[in-house]
Amino acid sequence: MNLAILGYGTVGRNVHKLLKEVDGITVKYILELPDRLTEDCMVSEPSIILQDPEIELVVDALPGIHPSSEYIKEALSSGKSVVSSNKAAICSSFKELNELAKEHGVRLLYEASCGGGIPVIEELMRVGKLDEIDSISGILNGTTNYILYMMQKEGMSYGDALKEAQRLGYAEADPTADVSGFDVRNKILILSSLAYNGYLTDDIPMIGIESITKEDMDRFASEGKTIKLMGISKLEGSSYALAVVPVLLPKDSMEANVPLNFNIVSFTGNYVGELKFYGQGAGGDPTADAVVRDVENVLYGDSMAFYRSFENELQYKPELLSGRCHVGGELLTDTVVAEAAAKAKAEGKSFYFEL
Amino acid sequence: MNLAILGYGTVGRNVHKLLKEVDGITVKYILELPDRLTEDCMVSEPSIILQDPEIELVVDALPGIHPSSEYIKEALSSGKSVVSSNKAAICSSFKELNELAKEHGVRLLYEASCGGGIPVIEELMRVGKLDEIDSISGILNGTTNYILYMMQKEGMSYGDALKEAQRLGYAEADPTADVSGFDVRNKILILSSLAYNGYLTDDIPMIGIESITKEDMDRFASEGKTIKLMGISKLEGSSYALAVVPVLLPKDSMEANVPLNFNIVSFTGNYVGELKFYGQGAGGDPTADAVVRDVENVLYGDSMAFYRSFENELQYKPELLSGRCHVGGELLTDTVVAEAAAKAKAEGKSFYFEL
Repeated sequence: MNLAILGYGTVGRNVHKLLKEVDGITVKYILELPDRLTEDCMVSEPSIILQDPEIELVVDALPGIHPSSEYIKEALSSGKSVVSSNKAAICSSFKELNELAKEHGVRLLYEASCGGGIPVIEELMRVGKLDEIDSISGILNGTTNYILYMMQKEGMSYGDALKEAQRLGYAEADPTADVSGFDVRNKILILSSLAYNGYLTDDIPMIGIESITKEDMDRFASEGKTIKLMGISKLEGSSYALAVVPVLLPKDSMEANVPLNFNIVSFTGNYVGELKFYGQGAGGDPTADAVVRDVENVLYGDSMAFYRSFENELQYKPELLSGRCHVGGELLTDTVVAEAAAKAKAEGKSFYFEL
Repeated sequence: MNLAILGYGTVGRNVHKLLKEVDGITVKYILELPDRLTEDCMVSEPSIILQDPEIELVVDALPGIHPSSEYIKEALSSGKSVVSSNKAAICSSFKELNELAKEHGVRLLYEASCGGGIPVIEELMRVGKLDEIDSISGILNGTTNYILYMMQKEGMSYGDALKEAQRLGYAEADPTADVSGFDVRNKILILSSLAYNGYLTDDIPMIGIESITKEDMDRFASEGKTIKLMGISKLEGSSYALAVVPVLLPKDSMEANVPLNFNIVSFTGNYVGELKFYGQGAGGDPTADAVVRDVENVLYGDSMAFYRSFENELQYKPELLSGRCHVGGELLTDTVVAEAAAKAKAEGKSFYFEL
């Protein structure tokens, strides 16, 4: 099978390396910038790839929404399967991309977009074939977990922990997408759509970690609670709610003990009960590993029977996520997360949701 | 597809219930005791099932090695695929059963045998297709985790916690298979064979939880350590070591915080890094869920490309598992677990391995 890799950053390079271990795959093209064409198969003109009928599969390892989402659309429309690690591009056009794949009878797989190497999307589809899944949540961003972990364990300030994360390559020079919660938002939207087998609105409460202070952390720690940034999501009947917010967890919960830049994702099925998946949520090799597992799924023709149809008609009902919200030091009980989070944002105050 | 269910206990009954939600499956027979034939499809004579050419798939939901392993062999030899939740039967003839399945070109799947509803075997095969896996370990028995959890959290004695586990149906009237570590032994042997893609010896160190006292637990807790019963296993080159022993874990580790009767399994791949899978390790619905996912794999013809070949020739080398061993209150450093465990057993002393 001839494939092309779009992008040659950390993920693209590692996908290229790992694909050498897979029989039956030829990397015919790699899309790179015009001044970086270091290998024979590298091209800088995407149409060479997207218009080549020999290319059956396109691996999207680009960052950001554009031009990645346009490339994915063109590939699917040309009858090529697509494997993507790009949560921003997948999330931004989730419905359109899935419908294009269906219309053209090709695969669209994106395991690496949520939780890096963690095989959670595979299992959401397999378990979701039999079970009704009614909740999904997780620590879905390694950068922010690393920052909170270093504040908690090493007593660092937010600023110092962020600098250390940048020094180690966990955080980018502009860390906004991570610390604002936007990256988690993309992931919990993708995962919830898969979990509930329907398309969701993307207008959800989102609070990042910028307003978390060491003082808050110490105060909650003295009450046995640990702060983590989580995406949380719930289904009741055909109504759902989602949020990306700092949460307070009992210190002996599984989530409270996720160290460093690791991720964890939990979902609950009506028969299987609660499942949790833990691993490296980012990094070249783990992310490439998930990409290559998806490539193998296309190559070996795994069963379409497990894929999601997204046929459920779902309504957004923010009230489903309610409870104890801390806004700027004030505890609000029985409060809708979306409302309390909006209030905290408007007043420039800290926000924590107690789980 | 016509299938038969062997056994109508907790697992068999729930498999029967869940299979009603799967299109394309007819439960033609259920094997039950002669005085319990309450449904039309129930038979008490196994040969009716095993000699019926219309039966393509046999679901083994029986407990114990015999006669389950004989039924599995006969089914495979007759060209029927087998899905089993029976770790004792699978482990006891692991090599022979896998070779029979290969010889007759049928499937042998046993996700539910290790970790109940947790999809760890599926992911061991998928991740193991690309990665070299060099360690696997876990809390693999819900009964013993429940007992240790209640001793730790509720201050119960071993005896009271065992009684409570029996009252809730987590422990059997004769709890030996669980508390002796034998159940974990079967599971870590199956999982390690899959992880390392080779057949292993079953002569491994095994210490259960009978000798764990509340005093030991409190003493270690004051040092920040939590006691759990774990199966642990390691590969170096073509050598491996395994053990089933009580371990001491840092209290902020993921494993130390696994509550109640939950299970967790971890393995490490050379690309994907460390993955952990958490969920209900037993119980009717979760176990049946894993059985039915295996049935679906057979029904939909998932790719054989991910299955393990068990082609690696592996040598048992107990020295690979060495470190700090506590024998009857005495700390032995740089000690081989197998030797220290044998000493503890011979002298009737407690044993803990520090991770």
